[in-house]
Amino acid sequence: MADILHRIGVKNSTPEKVYDALTTIDGLAAWWTEDTKGTSDTTNGVVQFRFPPVGGFDMEVTKLTPSSHVAWRVVDGPPEWIDTTITFDVSQDDDYTVVLFKHEGWKEPVDFMYHCSTKWGSYLMSMKTLLETGKGAPAPNDVQISNWH
Amino acid sequence: MADILHRIGVKNSTPEKVYDALTTIDGLAAWWTEDTKGTSDTTNGVVQFRFPPVGGFDMEVTKLTPSSHVAWRVVDGPPEWIDTTITFDVSQDDDYTVVLFKHEGWKEPVDFMYHCSTKWGSYLMSMKTLLETGKGAPAPNDVQISNWH
Repeated sequence: MADILHRIGVKNSTPEKVYDALTTIDGLAAWWTEDTKGTSDTTNGVVQFRFPPVGGFDMEVTKLTPSSHVAWRVVDGPPEWIDTTITFDVSQDDDYTVVLFKHEGWKEPVDFMYHCSTKWGSYLMSMKTLLETGKGAPAPNDVQISNWH
Repeated sequence: MADILHRIGVKNSTPEKVYDALTTIDGLAAWWTEDTKGTSDTTNGVVQFRFPPVGGFDMEVTKLTPSSHVAWRVVDGPPEWIDTTITFDVSQDDDYTVVLFKHEGWKEPVDFMYHCSTKWGSYLMSMKTLLETGKGAPAPNDVQISNWH
């Protein structure tokens, strides 16, 4: 088993604002992918993230602790992602709201996992920019990192 | 043990050019940190990467396969980094020169590892930008990702 880990710090924000960016459809659509639908603010809700034309992910919300913790389980998407889990831990550290991100449960460190690690980092930077400036870089206007986009 | 993985693709480049960015002092200084000194193009050489005012890393070059593979072992730096290894595997995939990056041998997934994962992704994007545009974002002009810089 292998995990993807990331840490970002958002300046001049609050745990409440970061939690909103992780648990509202408008928030998620403003940093990950504009094509976001479903129920993101309730345990057992399912959120559909799509990245036309290549597909996407369905996430079941498995745990929500306001302003502090969000957990998802991947219920549909690429085979490597199914049943992996994604967590966001939010806390305040001086002037920064810090997000610890973990995508765990990958069975093998396949090349696609290397790609997803870099891509997650880039999307988390999109969330940071969204909260700091009001404008993120969600798909389809995300930062291209390679031939796999 | 836990690993940091990343994958980037550099457009309109070659494995030779990417290898140069990984094995020359001028190349490394143009995407990771401007304060780079030492011997980067010979096995058993040691490269000093510094990030004033916070310190840095000494890397022993452990393996070099021209245009294809670079491996380093951390011989000095933060305690979590000592004896970890860093590898770059370079290959061509259509129009993109692909780099698979691995920083392995972390004993524990401490918060600093989360930070270094995101930071490595950002620096690899700096290498991509350097090779695509001629200008990277090495320290001290690197992209700030958090209160830990």
